[in-house]
Amino acid sequence: MEKLTLHEDPRSGNCYKIRLTAALLGLPLERVQYDIMKGETRTPDFLAKVNANGRIPVLQIGEQFLPESNAACWYLAEGSSLIPSDRFNRADMLRWMFFEQYNHEPNIATLRFWLLFVGEARLTQFQRDQIMAKRAGGEQALQLMDDHLAAHDWLAGGALSIADVALYAYTHVCEAGGFRLRDYPAICAWLGRIEAQPGYAAMD
Amino acid sequence: MEKLTLHEDPRSGNCYKIRLTAALLGLPLERVQYDIMKGETRTPDFLAKVNANGRIPVLQIGEQFLPESNAACWYLAEGSSLIPSDRFNRADMLRWMFFEQYNHEPNIATLRFWLLFVGEARLTQFQRDQIMAKRAGGEQALQLMDDHLAAHDWLAGGALSIADVALYAYTHVCEAGGFRLRDYPAICAWLGRIEAQPGYAAMD
Repeated sequence: MEKLTLHEDPRSGNCYKIRLTAALLGLPLERVQYDIMKGETRTPDFLAKVNANGRIPVLQIGEQFLPESNAACWYLAEGSSLIPSDRFNRADMLRWMFFEQYNHEPNIATLRFWLLFVGEARLTQFQRDQIMAKRAGGEQALQLMDDHLAAHDWLAGGALSIADVALYAYTHVCEAGGFRLRDYPAICAWLGRIEAQPGYAAMD
Repeated sequence: MEKLTLHEDPRSGNCYKIRLTAALLGLPLERVQYDIMKGETRTPDFLAKVNANGRIPVLQIGEQFLPESNAACWYLAEGSSLIPSDRFNRADMLRWMFFEQYNHEPNIATLRFWLLFVGEARLTQFQRDQIMAKRAGGEQALQLMDDHLAAHDWLAGGALSIADVALYAYTHVCEAGGFRLRDYPAICAWLGRIEAQPGYAAMD
């Protein structure tokens, strides 16, 4: 495989997904760090060269740039046991990854970012007005996962996959966003199964 | 392939993505319709059998149920020319599909739903307060697509793929959400290329 470079902010769970996938696969990954709080991913140079969308993570593969965390996990994991070999299970894994970006990340990651990095006192009124809806949406996403994991060890295909990695990233730190993990016992057991995997790497 | 049934509300662009993918591939698809405005996807029966997340579309494959529109498009298109054969291009296609669910759909599809189906007069204050941010987010997503399509005929891999289908669905009806397609000439030309494809099927 060509040289892999992760353009990241190490505080971001989306960036961590890619590091964890690479760690589980034993792939070396160089890291280039940006401070999103200082606008370092919105500079003309970053927009022209790394990602016109002004966001991290971006996985650089040789001279090609791949934005979107879950697409980068897919790239790294193709051909490995982290993607199910059965057609339905492979699509079902993607189902959980799209759920992550639509129902989980915008609620749970955003509340963590607001409360942990921006700070409640510095939130705008527009942000404050969204907290209740994001709290409810995040709890609904966690409950859906908990119900599923009460009957399945893994999210898709009966084995660890990048769907588990994608949803692990912000779930295991959701308490920083004001969610209570002890309300979701099946999630807690699943977090433990992931952390026991050979090659597991913790978030910085 | 096993019998394919689409659980849908025909007004939903997310459901239309799956119909358009099947049409381009010549796959027959039975349709079961629900009225989301009447809560027909939140009944105990729907939650227990079709999708615990209470949402359409769901693609039923024999006796298996697959939620999430983009995962369903992936399932249908596997092994066809609608998914690039090159590893980077395949991940780059998924990049655009995750962008669609994170940056495009929550802004453009939501404003279309609010303005066309709920009606501006019946929006809650909480919804009204979000219109400006969703307008800006949607315009940013369309501009990013327009800039890319000014230099590329298709979103990923140099050919029509399910990334084009996924982003076509709500882009071609974005004016119902108050966006102006004439501001995005490269998008307009790309819409025409998709509509000229053999097998193309229009939204109901």
